[in-house]
Amino acid sequence: MARTSRFVRRRSVKEGMSPGTLVHIGEASGDDVKITCIVYGPAEVRKEALDLAHLDAVELKSPGVTWINVDGLHRTEVVQRLGKKLSLHPLVLEDVVNAGQRPKLEDYGDYTFVVLRMLDYEATSGQITDEQVSLVLGPNWVITFQERPGDVFDSVRERIEADKGRIRRMEADYLAYCLVDAAVDRYFSLLEVIGDRLEEISDAIMGNPDQGVLRGLHELRQELMVLRRAAWPLRNVLHRMQQGQAHLITEGTSVFVRDAYDHTVQIIDTAETLREMTTDLRDIYLSSLSNRMSETMKVLTVIATIFIPLTFIAGVYGMNFAFMPELSWRYGYVAILGLMAAVAGGMLLYFRRRKWL
Amino acid sequence: MARTSRFVRRRSVKEGMSPGTLVHIGEASGDDVKITCIVYGPAEVRKEALDLAHLDAVELKSPGVTWINVDGLHRTEVVQRLGKKLSLHPLVLEDVVNAGQRPKLEDYGDYTFVVLRMLDYEATSGQITDEQVSLVLGPNWVITFQERPGDVFDSVRERIEADKGRIRRMEADYLAYCLVDAAVDRYFSLLEVIGDRLEEISDAIMGNPDQGVLRGLHELRQELMVLRRAAWPLRNVLHRMQQGQAHLITEGTSVFVRDAYDHTVQIIDTAETLREMTTDLRDIYLSSLSNRMSETMKVLTVIATIFIPLTFIAGVYGMNFAFMPELSWRYGYVAILGLMAAVAGGMLLYFRRRKWL
Amino acid sequence: MARTSRFVRRRSVKEGMSPGTLVHIGEASGDDVKITCIVYGPAEVRKEALDLAHLDAVELKSPGVTWINVDGLHRTEVVQRLGKKLSLHPLVLEDVVNAGQRPKLEDYGDYTFVVLRMLDYEATSGQITDEQVSLVLGPNWVITFQERPGDVFDSVRERIEADKGRIRRMEADYLAYCLVDAAVDRYFSLLEVIGDRLEEISDAIMGNPDQGVLRGLHELRQELMVLRRAAWPLRNVLHRMQQGQAHLITEGTSVFVRDAYDHTVQIIDTAETLREMTTDLRDIYLSSLSNRMSETMKVLTVIATIFIPLTFIAGVYGMNFAFMPELSWRYGYVAILGLMAAVAGGMLLYFRRRKWL
Amino acid sequence: MARTSRFVRRRSVKEGMSPGTLVHIGEASGDDVKITCIVYGPAEVRKEALDLAHLDAVELKSPGVTWINVDGLHRTEVVQRLGKKLSLHPLVLEDVVNAGQRPKLEDYGDYTFVVLRMLDYEATSGQITDEQVSLVLGPNWVITFQERPGDVFDSVRERIEADKGRIRRMEADYLAYCLVDAAVDRYFSLLEVIGDRLEEISDAIMGNPDQGVLRGLHELRQELMVLRRAAWPLRNVLHRMQQGQAHLITEGTSVFVRDAYDHTVQIIDTAETLREMTTDLRDIYLSSLSNRMSETMKVLTVIATIFIPLTFIAGVYGMNFAFMPELSWRYGYVAILGLMAAVAGGMLLYFRRRKWL
Amino acid sequence: MARTSRFVRRRSVKEGMSPGTLVHIGEASGDDVKITCIVYGPAEVRKEALDLAHLDAVELKSPGVTWINVDGLHRTEVVQRLGKKLSLHPLVLEDVVNAGQRPKLEDYGDYTFVVLRMLDYEATSGQITDEQVSLVLGPNWVITFQERPGDVFDSVRERIEADKGRIRRMEADYLAYCLVDAAVDRYFSLLEVIGDRLEEISDAIMGNPDQGVLRGLHELRQELMVLRRAAWPLRNVLHRMQQGQAHLITEGTSVFVRDAYDHTVQIIDTAETLREMTTDLRDIYLSSLSNRMSETMKVLTVIATIFIPLTFIAGVYGMNFAFMPELSWRYGYVAILGLMAAVAGGMLLYFRRRKWL
Repeated sequence: MARTSRFVRRRSVKEGMSPGTLVHIGEASGDDVKITCIVYGPAEVRKEALDLAHLDAVELKSPGVTWINVDGLHRTEVVQRLGKKLSLHPLVLEDVVNAGQRPKLEDYGDYTFVVLRMLDYEATSGQITDEQVSLVLGPNWVITFQERPGDVFDSVRERIEADKGRIRRMEADYLAYCLVDAAVDRYFSLLEVIGDRLEEISDAIMGNPDQGVLRGLHELRQELMVLRRAAWPLRNVLHRMQQGQAHLITEGTSVFVRDAYDHTVQIIDTAETLREMTTDLRDIYLSSLSNRMSETMKVLTVIATIFIPLTFIAGVYGMNFAFMPELSWRYGYVAILGLMAAVAGGMLLYFRRRKWL
Repeated sequence: MARTSRFVRRRSVKEGMSPGTLVHIGEASGDDVKITCIVYGPAEVRKEALDLAHLDAVELKSPGVTWINVDGLHRTEVVQRLGKKLSLHPLVLEDVVNAGQRPKLEDYGDYTFVVLRMLDYEATSGQITDEQVSLVLGPNWVITFQERPGDVFDSVRERIEADKGRIRRMEADYLAYCLVDAAVDRYFSLLEVIGDRLEEISDAIMGNPDQGVLRGLHELRQELMVLRRAAWPLRNVLHRMQQGQAHLITEGTSVFVRDAYDHTVQIIDTAETLREMTTDLRDIYLSSLSNRMSETMKVLTVIATIFIPLTFIAGVYGMNFAFMPELSWRYGYVAILGLMAAVAGGMLLYFRRRKWL
Repeated sequence: MARTSRFVRRRSVKEGMSPGTLVHIGEASGDDVKITCIVYGPAEVRKEALDLAHLDAVELKSPGVTWINVDGLHRTEVVQRLGKKLSLHPLVLEDVVNAGQRPKLEDYGDYTFVVLRMLDYEATSGQITDEQVSLVLGPNWVITFQERPGDVFDSVRERIEADKGRIRRMEADYLAYCLVDAAVDRYFSLLEVIGDRLEEISDAIMGNPDQGVLRGLHELRQELMVLRRAAWPLRNVLHRMQQGQAHLITEGTSVFVRDAYDHTVQIIDTAETLREMTTDLRDIYLSSLSNRMSETMKVLTVIATIFIPLTFIAGVYGMNFAFMPELSWRYGYVAILGLMAAVAGGMLLYFRRRKWL
Repeated sequence: MARTSRFVRRRSVKEGMSPGTLVHIGEASGDDVKITCIVYGPAEVRKEALDLAHLDAVELKSPGVTWINVDGLHRTEVVQRLGKKLSLHPLVLEDVVNAGQRPKLEDYGDYTFVVLRMLDYEATSGQITDEQVSLVLGPNWVITFQERPGDVFDSVRERIEADKGRIRRMEADYLAYCLVDAAVDRYFSLLEVIGDRLEEISDAIMGNPDQGVLRGLHELRQELMVLRRAAWPLRNVLHRMQQGQAHLITEGTSVFVRDAYDHTVQIIDTAETLREMTTDLRDIYLSSLSNRMSETMKVLTVIATIFIPLTFIAGVYGMNFAFMPELSWRYGYVAILGLMAAVAGGMLLYFRRRKWL
Repeated sequence: MARTSRFVRRRSVKEGMSPGTLVHIGEASGDDVKITCIVYGPAEVRKEALDLAHLDAVELKSPGVTWINVDGLHRTEVVQRLGKKLSLHPLVLEDVVNAGQRPKLEDYGDYTFVVLRMLDYEATSGQITDEQVSLVLGPNWVITFQERPGDVFDSVRERIEADKGRIRRMEADYLAYCLVDAAVDRYFSLLEVIGDRLEEISDAIMGNPDQGVLRGLHELRQELMVLRRAAWPLRNVLHRMQQGQAHLITEGTSVFVRDAYDHTVQIIDTAETLREMTTDLRDIYLSSLSNRMSETMKVLTVIATIFIPLTFIAGVYGMNFAFMPELSWRYGYVAILGLMAAVAGGMLLYFRRRKWL
């Protein structure tokens, strides 16, 4: 249930290593590393798959924007080579392959390094998957690194190819914004999924809840925790982006970044609200549970309480004393039965008046 | 019960779209879009309904203030046209139709964009409805966008037409303030509604509460959550307005904005207090519930406990041993009945002394 | 019990009104409006009651300090006239009569407007009453508005008349400080009252608590809430006063304001401590309750448990089988009674050893 | 138990008095007021007891540091005289005798006024006593006021007399630091006492806890509250001291003040940790209590549940029907006893398999 | 269980001592003090063990970096000598030997003093050990003090000797960073250990939990408390290091410090998440416990409730009335048995329909 592995990355293998050593920490996807390069400008767009051998041949020509996307981090030499070509700081490369970073923004003057968490809902396990996406923004290029091939950037790619919106007429910083925005948009979908599941659980609690309810709420809380851990620092990243702390972000793009910032705040806000609702629902479930239990016990106890005095009366007349005048009365039996009925009826009335039944 | 849809907007349809694409997110009211235009100055006021065709003909003449109000957002071309006419940023238009924004203020130099949440109490469902109102303040004009035709701005309209107060002698920024203030004033009414319902529940808890109490408190907490989500960011908006971050707000109006700010703080304050009261009431209800349950069980158990030894005594003299001297005693039966009465009386006394009865 | 009306003011009547409209919101005391005016300087003091007609004739002569006190706000024309005479902003007048403001300080250049909450303990209802006091400080005058005639300013009046302390030799800002300080001093008395009642409840919990304990704690928490709502913003007011944000406060008086600020912090501090104690006491009460309940149930259950096997044995020898050898034994009966005693004794021993009794 | 008097000072006697009026609020120790004066420099040290009459004769010669210590505040004329001699502000004198201040630092230019809380553990009552110590630091003198004669400054006195450490070669600000530091050091001892008692309670909870545990935890929480109320504002005082807001503190002493600041942070930190531990321990105790209770009830209920069907069987064969064939069977009795044993055994097995026993 | 000694250091022995007095507070390891000195530069590295006698002979030659490491603090004269040689402030030396400091950074101009907590997992006790490591960074030297010989710096030593990474080509500030980073890396391993144990407990809760679960969670919470107390102030230390408040840290190293800062934030973040999980798990455990208990009690009560009316019926026909017609009926016995079966069956059906079974 509570998989701490979602929050604790196994990076102990790195202990004692020199800073800047590239060791991939994260799950190695079975697929090979895939590198694609898109070069575009207002007039034209060119897309090609790269292999390791031709990596050095890529030219980052101006004018035009070059976007290199790397799917798969387990072959660290790819990262190494790209880092060397673009003179990236060793710590940037280390953070790229060490896929358990918190979202952050680091401005290195010539380029800006951004780490994001890409969240996705896996329908089979019913859990949110959490993957690191790193993004380096240079003067006229953007490089993105993903752990696994994903489809979240497809919409951006499509917009570039089909020349939708303003993207082809903007600079590299707008591309970077679009990529971050695509990730943020995905968070909204996750909130919808979580919201739907919360509503299901809420309905179950109103209806006929079983013990799975508690576990379900606990799981939702963990999903929200994953979301929060991704969104809170992202909010900070976007705030700093917009405040001009990433000096490659131009003013024209800054307005859009503010928009993404607003969205992130909205996501955090909603996640907190959902979280509070899980707490409220848990309390309602627990108290309804204890309520129903109490009701059951009360009815059962009332039944027992009514019969115990009756049994006692029967016991009295089952005694074998030689001299018990009632026993020989003609209507003794009927009288006793009547007495018993009267006692039972009286108790029922009393219990009902005191609202115990 | 717990309707997460109140907090999670279904905006997944927007995923992958280019920023600035206008897609209406929110409930489409059945009514058609209604556009009204009021032009006023100290001396005169002119009000007319506009249709889409004549939208471009509207002149924003100075001196005088022009207020255009749009009811209904599902026909995005209206927003598009107005946006084009006034050169509004595409993101502003997107936020106008994407009706799940948090309250915010964005200053674009030539105009200031403000998003509000308009809350209203719907007596039939007993819930607070939550609608987005967008407001753009230009040098001598104000445009407002509402999801549904509402009556909250009627009082402002009336003040303009009847020339009540100072509104006709003030600039557009004062109109903007009046509109925001009308929304804030509505929040107070909601607090009264919530306060009344809380008091009802409180009375129920003192009297004869049923399980609905818990659900009622939970619903109130959700209403307060809706209110809080509207008021907290609004407080921020008003703070920034007053601090001169919206440079179209003149100093004369700033004093009034401070007043609205104070009201918002008061609303938040009261909402938090009511929230704490729901928590306290829930605790009192739960403990009174468990208390009453315990009392019931105790009385029932005491009854059973008194009769069980008596039944035992009766059982003893119901045994069929050949040699049981008491059975043949003349007053055996009476003696045993006396013994039973003594045991029962002794136990009652003991229980009473230990405060179990 | 939980009177939300103490926190939610019925100001919905104001909805849709023009800002600056004077509508008295608050309880109208039956008494008439009473206006008193004190003019004093180092050498002389003059005190007179004013009526509405002579209001305009009042001169605010310098040197000397003029203090006008208005008891009762339901006749808004008084406020209106005073406001006109002293050229107060319409929003100030609105806040004066709208008696549900949070404490605040607003500096209007020529004068400073301060709102306070005057708390008082009403012995009959056992509740804290909460009244608004507004204070306007001008260059050489102070005007105070009270909802009801109260005695909290009497000590200041007496000090002026009897020339105690430095008050006659100081300016109007010192008078304003003295009035605020008198209100703060009253808070300490309230803390004592609350502290005493908390101690009573604490003693009851140690002794023989009934269900009233919970309600008592809940009421104390509400009183502390009222106090907190008055003191927190007041702390802010005093902080701003001392920091020179009210420019009519001279440096000589500023030292005294700091002292009042310290007192307010102390009040808040103590109120929070008392609040935490109510939480602790509630927990102790609830757990002691459940503890005692458990003890009762345990003893009762032990009694039942001991007699049930005995009753079974008696039941066995009450069976009517033709062939039951024990029945015809000479000492069968005695033996069985012995067996029963042994079983009961054994169980008692066992229960005692396991600490169930 | 919950002595609110530890948190609520009875200062209502002061209500309505002029600010600066000297009224001693606090417990009057029976002892007389004791004034001692130590004058020291690198070369010499002179110590004498002063009486009220010679107070004015004291010279504050430079070079050399003069430390006047006053034990007992109930004779306010002592404070008055010293205040006059050194031209202290009336509010300083008021705070000195009004012994319920929060720790604070006030810089009056010529001198700095510091209020501390001196805590001590009273072994007899098992409670922390809480006394106010005021300290005024002048250019070459320090005056300290204590409510009761205490021994916490003895170590500093001894260091001066025996010329240990650097104190004789430093200025008056270092002496002030030493006195504050002595108070801080005492807090550590209190933490040890509280820690030891917490550990005792923890051991009791693991062993055989009684109801005193809860009360003990509650008392510890109150002691920690006292400590926190003393340490939090003290942290602020030391922070401001170190930041140069007390301009009599030289840079050489500032390093030492930082050290005392660190200690205070450590004390607060530890107190918070201990506080959290009390919460955890309470939860563990309560759940262990309810656990043990449940176990008891379960066993008792199982016993009853086993015998009830058996008693029913016996009851069946105790019926007096004329025609009950089993009754006349030769081995009917034995068979029924066997049946009973079988039923009991079966139930035991079943209960054990379901882990109810 | 709850060992407060982990949080409360016994430093009362220091009370009343002069500031700067060296008294070792902490556990004295049995081993002797061990001093090692490593001098290195890009070209060469020299390592030697020092004894007290030769301490003064050490030269801190430039160029080259000298790293002196002291294992064991109980012989304070070693610290004293080193302090004198390098003109360290007495308070620095006091903090070095007083091994209960919070992590902190103090910049003394010529050198920077850093205190760290070195945490380690002790497999035998299953607890985290918590040791103080002090570090003084000078222009071209670093001195480290450890309470016990540890292996956490071995990896740095190895990197120097084997010339791995950039360490030999960097200045002393990089060495200081590497040492801090080694400590931070160790925290990640601890999080893994704690995460694993949390997962074990989580599995136990899903399976067949015993009471140890609660204690286990409590222990984990304490380990997380230890971690938090070490990591929170460390975050502050690294923040100030990176912000240039330690002016010996060059810009080249500052990038690396930012990396360590990010790691610390990540550690704190994860620790908080794990902490929240312990709370959630505890709630789930407690409610599952109470759930299971309730289920048991319900079943038992149902059994009793079914047999009690049956026993009553049997009791009725065990009465000895002379005139009870049913007794002499031919099929009376069978009819009654049938009645009993019907009653039992009816109750079972009813209970099942109401979901009580």
